[in-house]
Amino acid sequence: MPELRLNLITREWVIIAKERARRPEDFKGIPLRRPQADYLKACPFCPGNEDKTPPEVFCVGDAEGRWRVRVVPNKFAALSDTGEVKRTRVGVKNMVAGVGRHEVIIETPLHNLNPALMEPSHVEELIHIYKNRFLDAYLDPRVEHVIIFRNHGERAGTSLEHPHSQLIATPVVPVQFRDRVMAAMHYFDDTGECMVCDVLKSELEDGSRVIFDSEHFLTFIPFAALSPFHTWIFPKRHSATFSTITEPEIKDLSLHLQGVLAKLHRGLNDPDYNFVLRSSRPKDAGNDYCHWYLSIIPRLTRTAGFEMGSGMYINTSLPEESAEFLRSTPID
Amino acid sequence: MPELRLNLITREWVIIAKERARRPEDFKGIPLRRPQADYLKACPFCPGNEDKTPPEVFCVGDAEGRWRVRVVPNKFAALSDTGEVKRTRVGVKNMVAGVGRHEVIIETPLHNLNPALMEPSHVEELIHIYKNRFLDAYLDPRVEHVIIFRNHGERAGTSLEHPHSQLIATPVVPVQFRDRVMAAMHYFDDTGECMVCDVLKSELEDGSRVIFDSEHFLTFIPFAALSPFHTWIFPKRHSATFSTITEPEIKDLSLHLQGVLAKLHRGLNDPDYNFVLRSSRPKDAGNDYCHWYLSIIPRLTRTAGFEMGSGMYINTSLPEESAEFLRSTPID
Repeated sequence: MPELRLNLITREWVIIAKERARRPEDFKGIPLRRPQADYLKACPFCPGNEDKTPPEVFCVGDAEGRWRVRVVPNKFAALSDTGEVKRTRVGVKNMVAGVGRHEVIIETPLHNLNPALMEPSHVEELIHIYKNRFLDAYLDPRVEHVIIFRNHGERAGTSLEHPHSQLIATPVVPVQFRDRVMAAMHYFDDTGECMVCDVLKSELEDGSRVIFDSEHFLTFIPFAALSPFHTWIFPKRHSATFSTITEPEIKDLSLHLQGVLAKLHRGLNDPDYNFVLRSSRPKDAGNDYCHWYLSIIPRLTRTAGFEMGSGMYINTSLPEESAEFLRSTPID
Repeated sequence: MPELRLNLITREWVIIAKERARRPEDFKGIPLRRPQADYLKACPFCPGNEDKTPPEVFCVGDAEGRWRVRVVPNKFAALSDTGEVKRTRVGVKNMVAGVGRHEVIIETPLHNLNPALMEPSHVEELIHIYKNRFLDAYLDPRVEHVIIFRNHGERAGTSLEHPHSQLIATPVVPVQFRDRVMAAMHYFDDTGECMVCDVLKSELEDGSRVIFDSEHFLTFIPFAALSPFHTWIFPKRHSATFSTITEPEIKDLSLHLQGVLAKLHRGLNDPDYNFVLRSSRPKDAGNDYCHWYLSIIPRLTRTAGFEMGSGMYINTSLPEESAEFLRSTPID
């Protein structure tokens, strides 16, 4: 019989299709077409084409002036970085001027690299830059919320194949975020505990869905994973906001993130995926019930009418089997 | 400058990328591979293969015993139709046995037909059957919520190409549904009005996003459409539940549904799409603030990390332009 599991943190019910479940190796796709060459003349993110992007806002490189990572405003920004946050309300219509920030973090000069194939120290440098840009975006008083994310492959919504992550800072708080904060707040009021801390403890005790466990982080497939190989990286230290991450934690996180992406790459033939950093603002650092984390969503299946119409999910994999599969997949 | 619009009913913010917006005709895909022949020997839904599906639970046909529409349990059901609704709660883990109902409505014997190409009277018959199955599913005391939906094409999650819709009845109320009911309730308490009725009035007065307006229904692109050509069909008479639909309303709805699907088919080269019926239960018929409707979501773009991480959307079309384009697209 199928089993419905409640994802306590996202508040979504997931149908775990036990009998219909495919084995982990069935999700192994045929290797997708990825860039072969490490340089593409026409690519605006490849070295030599720096004038094809807006001027960089941040950069790390070597003494000879060669950059390793560049951060530039998105040339086709979803939100404008100039203007006032003007709200308009006419009857049932609520509008806000589209001001905010949309940055591209060009992760490497190499056109054909990606985090699954990077050295952990390279990923560590990226996380440092995420922290820098996260803090910087919140200095803008027009910014209410910041999302850092990565789209890998066409199914994950990439339009440019050169390895990059993105930051979007919005002038409104997303309702989804507020809803989850509310749920976490009620949980805290009812139990005196942070929901994420409790889920972390439960996953650690159970162990069957754990992929990596270390001093500062736990990487696991959630009990009610929304889709096959949906993976969470939770910091063990309670903190509402990513901005409090310490040096040793950044180093540890880089091993988790690079490691799990490498396992997905190797185990499932480099699947398309998104990853997303979910965090409160720096000024909510003292919050007791919010807890930042990183979510990785391989794009192995498609959402259909049922998911759209209900907000529920049908997961055709067993989280425990997927975790076992990733545990036994070597990193390199 | 881009504009953020709040979708009052789904409670999602949408970035309307004004400068980046593509023109309506830019969403015209290359014609996708659709079935050519009206019969496929290997198709379990084609006539002659009735023994390849579980026994039918409902059927309409002619005096010679030829069926026009068949309803069968899904052979690979997401939920089991036998068993008890057993809830289990262990620490942070909430589970429910996966009992419920999963039916397939085989819309026609013809393998290559689809609602965009059907006679409106055929769509009318389908809506009658939706009503029948909707009411029937709620007779089961284990059922808490019913979703009726259609997946058209691979991007919309179809696995079998023979034209069909589906019904899934779940033993839990989806959190997404509850959240929207709560928002509608607060709106009602604040204003004394149904939110859907108010949005309907506003769209009628404005007119710029209307596709069809008739005695009983309004078809329009919402002010804060979540994605290009996202379309809503609202019943003008306030009713919380689809189960109260009358004969004249069914006839009128069939013209709207078939008409707008035909316009999408013709105007955008038969795009993949989902449609979903959003409705309260029959026993909530007296509810003042819930209002059923039908949502059509063409799958013209992909959600990426930003949408996943925020629950916000970036719409690269202008709802007003899309509506104008569909208004001027002939039905046949």
